[in-house]
Amino acid sequence: MADKPSKGLADIIAASTALSDIDGRAGLLFYRGYDIHQLAGSATFEEVAYLLQRGHPPSRAELAGYAREIAAGRALGALVTGCLPDVAGSQEPMEAMRTLVSLASAEDPDKDSNSAEANVHKATRLTAQQPILVAAYHAARNGGKACPAEPELGVAANFLLQMRGSPPAPREAEIFDTCLVLHADHTMNASTFAARVCAATLSDMHSAVVAAIGTLKGPLHGGANEQVMRTLAEIRAAAPDDPVDAVEREVRDRLGRGEKIMGFGHRVYKTEDPRATHLREMSRELAEADGDDTYYRMSRRMEETVLAEKGLYPNVDFFAATVYHYLQIPTDLFTPVFSVSRMAGWTAHVMEQHADNRLIRPDSEYVGERGLIWTPLDQR
Amino acid sequence: MADKPSKGLADIIAASTALSDIDGRAGLLFYRGYDIHQLAGSATFEEVAYLLQRGHPPSRAELAGYAREIAAGRALGALVTGCLPDVAGSQEPMEAMRTLVSLASAEDPDKDSNSAEANVHKATRLTAQQPILVAAYHAARNGGKACPAEPELGVAANFLLQMRGSPPAPREAEIFDTCLVLHADHTMNASTFAARVCAATLSDMHSAVVAAIGTLKGPLHGGANEQVMRTLAEIRAAAPDDPVDAVEREVRDRLGRGEKIMGFGHRVYKTEDPRATHLREMSRELAEADGDDTYYRMSRRMEETVLAEKGLYPNVDFFAATVYHYLQIPTDLFTPVFSVSRMAGWTAHVMEQHADNRLIRPDSEYVGERGLIWTPLDQR
Repeated sequence: MADKPSKGLADIIAASTALSDIDGRAGLLFYRGYDIHQLAGSATFEEVAYLLQRGHPPSRAELAGYAREIAAGRALGALVTGCLPDVAGSQEPMEAMRTLVSLASAEDPDKDSNSAEANVHKATRLTAQQPILVAAYHAARNGGKACPAEPELGVAANFLLQMRGSPPAPREAEIFDTCLVLHADHTMNASTFAARVCAATLSDMHSAVVAAIGTLKGPLHGGANEQVMRTLAEIRAAAPDDPVDAVEREVRDRLGRGEKIMGFGHRVYKTEDPRATHLREMSRELAEADGDDTYYRMSRRMEETVLAEKGLYPNVDFFAATVYHYLQIPTDLFTPVFSVSRMAGWTAHVMEQHADNRLIRPDSEYVGERGLIWTPLDQR
Repeated sequence: MADKPSKGLADIIAASTALSDIDGRAGLLFYRGYDIHQLAGSATFEEVAYLLQRGHPPSRAELAGYAREIAAGRALGALVTGCLPDVAGSQEPMEAMRTLVSLASAEDPDKDSNSAEANVHKATRLTAQQPILVAAYHAARNGGKACPAEPELGVAANFLLQMRGSPPAPREAEIFDTCLVLHADHTMNASTFAARVCAATLSDMHSAVVAAIGTLKGPLHGGANEQVMRTLAEIRAAAPDDPVDAVEREVRDRLGRGEKIMGFGHRVYKTEDPRATHLREMSRELAEADGDDTYYRMSRRMEETVLAEKGLYPNVDFFAATVYHYLQIPTDLFTPVFSVSRMAGWTAHVMEQHADNRLIRPDSEYVGERGLIWTPLDQR
């Protein structure tokens, strides 16, 4: 038995995985051996989800079959649709995602099995369903229903259609697709680890994903992209005439007060997060197409200032904020959108855990009092 | 960075805790320094929940205040009661518990805060609510409503009242109360660890508890008590004339085929699980009062056979099975009943995690292929 606690398990290898790998020093991320720089802009989210969940890049026929399974998996069951209006009326986005996925297990045709075969279909359905849940939740909280899914559209284009109620420009759908590719997996992050701890009791995939959603809900994991956008919007509102210079002043002030700037630094990357490289460029492109590139220019100034002052690089959340903003995604749905993408990784990790399982039960170090004598209540 | 994976984290100290401690060699369990042997039969579940959640044994006035808070916390909100009939009609017990607790966060008055003050009240409400959810679920799946809670009754007596629809004998309530005491906490078990991984992103207590429930749902963690009872019932049904001898034959057959016998052995205890000592005696007492002690005698024979053949001792799940059976709790609710008790520990661990937090993000070892070249789809 180790005699020292590994707080945060920072140096502990908790699992073996063939799903993703990070070279933190070089700033590289790989999915099943493919450099993310090769995949971004070249592979669709469906190809990447298939790669993660089924172990190899799909052939054209396999991808067509997967797309059909995704389209079929979009249908929400009666329990989810029945509870949705009340849930949307009283739960915040990530709280609602946790509830809705928990409800959805009831009607999964493979719910009673953890077999590899059952899991691969559950994984596909969960991947199909998550964007539908986000769009349906958004419509329901506004008292309506999302427009019907379009079976011919991929995950990214269909999500933007259902979220907005009108079709996105083709290039917008491509960019969002790349966002989903970039967020699909990231080794043993906290939500993925929670999913594996859950799955390791041989609990089911829905339970593991519900645990992951609840874990992603925490501001130390998800939510940083939302905070980045809120910070930018606040600074712009307070200094509409010189928002870019105002960013620099505000960042210097905050750092001077010892505050943290959201969207920078990562426990794993010692250089630029490779996902940020792509997100920066997509933010620039969308800003240009939008005509108002203020938020992009503000982001660049913030990036330069934080790098100069603290030596910290932007992480995946930083430029995702403005990309999602330009794609007209409401700020409070940025973390649910993260779950749309990470569902591919979570489900793949559950399958990997089930395929070679051992209960995850660490030790703890007892630091409390010892040898106390219990006094019965009537003598207290 | 460590270079070898710690599969299952078996030898890794993942956290420091002042909540519980195990001496696996001596077969001892302590809650905040008090030996479980002192608490069983002497402290109520409310006293133990208070001890775990608030750090010291309650004075008489503190306990009265806690009991009032528990009684008030029993009221279910509109979202839970609105969705309950549909959830109970289409989800299995632990699936439903996961959903119902996820729904319940919507109406917690402290939902927007993770402060120590907010958490202590959320913990009390979750502890109050869990037995109500189990009883309400059970009534709803039978198309009805549980009888109203009795504010003067403690958690154990009120649960048996609402579950059965009629008041339990005082000694039954005492025995069930002791069961709740015995299951309240157990260091870094898988569900508690899942709760801490979730809470360590600074997610909220409900999310952490939902993760724990999903983790307890897995048969390697919860559910063993249910399987023990099903095994006993099957053997008895197959050999109604000599069920006790039939147990011995069946156990020898199963062990001969290399099968595992549920309810025996534990990763931590090398001798008898101290909780089993109390549960065995309570099973004996209830069997005697019942007049039909067949299941108790079958359990004893199973225990003797497994010890003789494999050197394994019964764990907490083994005698809990017959105790719950004699208390007329339906077999498929044994794991939800476990959650009623463990809620005290889960919530206390979330508070401990939040009080001295660090994100729990382990490393993983990459074991897949490297350096692959992505071929675009149209060239595949």
